[in-house]
Amino acid sequence: MKKYEELIEQIRRQIQNEIWQTGEKLPSLRKQAELSGMSLMTVVHAYQVLESQGWIVSRARSGYVVAPKIENSDSTPANEPVQQTESVDINDFVFEVLQASRTPNITDFGKVYPDPTLYPRQHVNKSLISTARSLSASSAMDNLPPGNLELRQHIAKRYAAQGMTVHPDEIVITTGALEALNLSLQSVTQPGDWVVVESPTFYGALQSLQRLNLRALSVRTHPTDGIDLESLENALQSHPVKACWLMTNHQNPLGFTLSVDKKQRLMALLAKYDVYLIEDDVYNELHFGSDKPLPAKAFDSHGKALHCSSFSKSLVAGFRIGWVAAGKMAVPIQKLQMMSTLSTSAPIQMTLASYLSTRNYERHLRQLRRTLEQRKFATWQALRNHLPAQVNINCSDGGYFLWLELPGGLDATELYRRALQQHICITPGKMFSAGDFHNHCFRLNVSFELTDSRLNAIKTLGELIRIMVTTLPQTARDPGNAPTP
Amino acid sequence: MKKYEELIEQIRRQIQNEIWQTGEKLPSLRKQAELSGMSLMTVVHAYQVLESQGWIVSRARSGYVVAPKIENSDSTPANEPVQQTESVDINDFVFEVLQASRTPNITDFGKVYPDPTLYPRQHVNKSLISTARSLSASSAMDNLPPGNLELRQHIAKRYAAQGMTVHPDEIVITTGALEALNLSLQSVTQPGDWVVVESPTFYGALQSLQRLNLRALSVRTHPTDGIDLESLENALQSHPVKACWLMTNHQNPLGFTLSVDKKQRLMALLAKYDVYLIEDDVYNELHFGSDKPLPAKAFDSHGKALHCSSFSKSLVAGFRIGWVAAGKMAVPIQKLQMMSTLSTSAPIQMTLASYLSTRNYERHLRQLRRTLEQRKFATWQALRNHLPAQVNINCSDGGYFLWLELPGGLDATELYRRALQQHICITPGKMFSAGDFHNHCFRLNVSFELTDSRLNAIKTLGELIRIMVTTLPQTARDPGNAPTP
Repeated sequence: MKKYEELIEQIRRQIQNEIWQTGEKLPSLRKQAELSGMSLMTVVHAYQVLESQGWIVSRARSGYVVAPKIENSDSTPANEPVQQTESVDINDFVFEVLQASRTPNITDFGKVYPDPTLYPRQHVNKSLISTARSLSASSAMDNLPPGNLELRQHIAKRYAAQGMTVHPDEIVITTGALEALNLSLQSVTQPGDWVVVESPTFYGALQSLQRLNLRALSVRTHPTDGIDLESLENALQSHPVKACWLMTNHQNPLGFTLSVDKKQRLMALLAKYDVYLIEDDVYNELHFGSDKPLPAKAFDSHGKALHCSSFSKSLVAGFRIGWVAAGKMAVPIQKLQMMSTLSTSAPIQMTLASYLSTRNYERHLRQLRRTLEQRKFATWQALRNHLPAQVNINCSDGGYFLWLELPGGLDATELYRRALQQHICITPGKMFSAGDFHNHCFRLNVSFELTDSRLNAIKTLGELIRIMVTTLPQTARDPGNAPTP
Repeated sequence: MKKYEELIEQIRRQIQNEIWQTGEKLPSLRKQAELSGMSLMTVVHAYQVLESQGWIVSRARSGYVVAPKIENSDSTPANEPVQQTESVDINDFVFEVLQASRTPNITDFGKVYPDPTLYPRQHVNKSLISTARSLSASSAMDNLPPGNLELRQHIAKRYAAQGMTVHPDEIVITTGALEALNLSLQSVTQPGDWVVVESPTFYGALQSLQRLNLRALSVRTHPTDGIDLESLENALQSHPVKACWLMTNHQNPLGFTLSVDKKQRLMALLAKYDVYLIEDDVYNELHFGSDKPLPAKAFDSHGKALHCSSFSKSLVAGFRIGWVAAGKMAVPIQKLQMMSTLSTSAPIQMTLASYLSTRNYERHLRQLRRTLEQRKFATWQALRNHLPAQVNINCSDGGYFLWLELPGGLDATELYRRALQQHICITPGKMFSAGDFHNHCFRLNVSFELTDSRLNAIKTLGELIRIMVTTLPQTARDPGNAPTP
C-alpha cells in the first residue's frame, strides 16, 4: 500500500470510529504533513481522495471538515456509464483553444507542456551540439524505423529498471507520443471499429478516433479512481470493441493514477475480451511519490498492451521524440510509419541517445518532480483561497494539471471565453469529451511559478466565476454544499 | 521550347526529310553534344524521347540508328488506359524491398535517397550547431504548426524566384514531404473516395491510399511524356474523383518532366472537374537543364493544387523536413497535423531556416546537379554496354533514377530476387503499381559513383538478365528488335 493510501485508510477509520465527528475540522494540510512525515502534496492528494469519496468536505478558508454521513459515497460524474459516439468531431474547438493559448501576453493556464524553463536545456543542447559534430553521411539510414538502436536500448533499460522485460526490437521511435498512439491505434483497428476511451479523456484520443474514422465508447471515469471497470466490462460485452485508449498514470485531464490492483484487473479484462490496450503514459516520470508507477503493460501476459510515451513532458518539448513498446505489433507499426512520416529526425534521435548515456536524466527528473510538486501545491492553495468554495478542485500526486468543476452545471466554455477577454487562458472541459458531460469542468496547467501576474489571474478567475454563480438558483449557490455530484 | 525539345524537333525533321535514313547511325552522344553545345545528359534525353517515339532505336555497342518507318509511333505501355483498384495492398512487398536495401555489404541500386556524400554535411551541421547554441526555452512553441516562420519565408522566397506568389501562411512545415502528401490527401478526401495516381507511380502514393482507405484509379503514364491526359479525362468523367496524386517533375520512377503545355492543360482539366491536385515535387531541384521546372501549381488559377516538397533529396536526408504550399487548405492541414504528429522537430526546422539564410544552398545545388548528371550518364553508359540490348533503358534530364524494361515480359521481381542473392539490390517495378503492369520493369538509383564494385554489379545484372532471356521464345530474344512496346 502506498503512503497516501495508508493515510486515507487511517483517517477513514478515525471517522468511522467517530474520532473525528461530522463538521469537525481535520488537521490542516501542513500540520498533517508534519504529523505524518509526508509531503504536502501527498497529504493534499489523500484529503482529495477522501473528499471525492464523500468522507470529508472542503470549506473556504477553514480547510477540511468531516462530511455529513451519507449512504452512497459514490461521487462519480453524473454522466451515463457508457456513451457511444458514431463519429467524433472535436477538432475545430480543440484547434481554437490551442491557438488561443498562443496569443501573446496571455496568462496561460492552458498550455499542454510544462514550464519550458524546467527543462535541462543546457545539457540537452550540449548533446545536440556533440551530435551535430559527429553526424555521419549514413545517419539518415541508421535512424530509419524502428529508429536509433542506442536510443531504443536506453528506453529498454528504463523498462528493465521497473522490472519489465522489453526488447529493443519491440520499440519503435516516433514523432512524439502522439504519432506512437496514432500508429498503434491504426495498427489494431479498421475504420468503423469501436474504441473505448475514458470520459473525460485526452482530446488527442478523440481527435485520433476522428482522423481514423473510428467510433468512440466513452466509459465513465472517476477523478481519483480512474476508469470504472464494471462499466468497461459492460461496454466490452455490448460492443465489438477492438481497442481501449487509456491513460493509466497521472491521467490527463483528471490526474488519477490507476492502482496496481486495478491495472491487473484491467489487463485481465482486456485479455478476456481479446481487446488491445493503447496505453498513453506520457506523464509517468512526473510522480511525486518515491516510485515511478508501473504501466498496465507490466501486467500484460497476453501481448495486448501497446505502451506509448515520450520525452516531451519530462525532458524537452519540441524535439518530437516518442516511442511505443509494441511487442508483436512493432513491425506492423513500422510499416504504417513508413507510409506516413517515414521516420523522425535522425540527429534528434541521436541527441537523445547521447543525453540518456549520461546520468543527467535522473538528476534532472528528481529536481523536476520536486519543483512541479511545489508549484502544484502553491497554485492549488491560491485557487482554494480565491475561487468560490463551491468550485471542486481535483488534485493528484503527479503531473502538472488540476481539474476543476464549476458548481450547478455552470458552463466552463463560457468561463473560458470570459477569461480570454481578460487575457487568461484555461482549458475548457468540453475538449475532453465526445459528449457534453464535462462542460462544467476545466483544466489548469500549474507547472509555472505562481508569480504575481498568475496570482492576479487566479483572483480574476475567482471574480468571473462569482459573477456566473449569481445566475444560479439559491440552492446551487450555497457554498456549504458538498462538491457537485 | 527547351533546348532538348529543339534538338528532338531538329532530328525528327531530318529523319522525315530522309537526311538520316532507316538503319543509318546517328552522331554519337558525345559528338552530338559537341555539335549542339548541350550537355551529354540533355542529348541522351533527346535521343531517349526520339527512341520512345519510335524514330530511332538503340543498338548495343553501335549507338542509335534510325528506326524502320512505322505507322503508329505510340509506344505507351501496353496496360489499360485506366485501371481501378478497390483497395490497395502494396505495403508488405515495399517493406520487404526497403529492408533488403539495408542489408550490410550490399551493392545498392535500390536506395530512395541520393548518395549521402553529395550532401553539404559540414555546412548543414554548422547550422545545426549554431541553432543548438541559441535554442531558447520557447522554441517548442515557436515551431508548432504551421511551423517556423523564418523557414516558411525562405520557402516562399524560393517560389517567388520562380515567379510564383505563395504567402508564408499558406505553407505548412511537415515531417518530410511524405507527411505533407499524406495530410494533403487526407484533407481533401474521405475513406472510399477515388483518387487518380500515375501508372507506374511512386509507391508512397499507393501506400498512402491504402492507409487512408481510398480507391485508386491508375492512369496510363508514358515514360517520357508523362500522364496521358485523354485517359485522365476519361477517368474524371467515369468516376467521382476527389484528387489526383501526381509527380510533375522528374517523376519517380519514370523520370519524365511534364511540359509546360501539359501542366497548363492538366490544371485546366482539374479545374473543369473540380478535382484537387496533390503535387509531389520532391525532385524539382535536381534538374540538369538550366532552369528549375515550374510546378503545375504555377498554372493553378482555381486553388486546386497542393504543392508538396522537401529538403530530403536535395540537401539532407534524415532531417525529415518537408512542406506543403496548400493555399486555402493550410488550416485544415494544420488541424490534421495536430491530430497525428503535432509538429516536426523544432531545432531541425530552425537549422534549415538558418542554413537557407546563407548563399550555400544555391552553390551546393549547382554542384549537386552537375555530379548527378555525370554519374547518371556514366551509369547509363555502363548499363548500355553490359545489359542485353533488348533491355530498354529510360533516361531523363533530372533526378537520379533510371527506369528499365526487361524484354518479353520477363519478371523483374525474379531478377530482384536473383540479384539479391548476389548482394545487389534493385527496385522491382511491382512496387510502383496497384496492378501488375510493371512487373517487367525495375528502377535503379544511379546517384553513386560508378566504382569497380558497382560496375561489376552491373555486369552481374547483365549476366542474370541474359540467363532469364534464354527462357524466352526466339522472337522475343532477338536483340535487333525495337524496344518492347
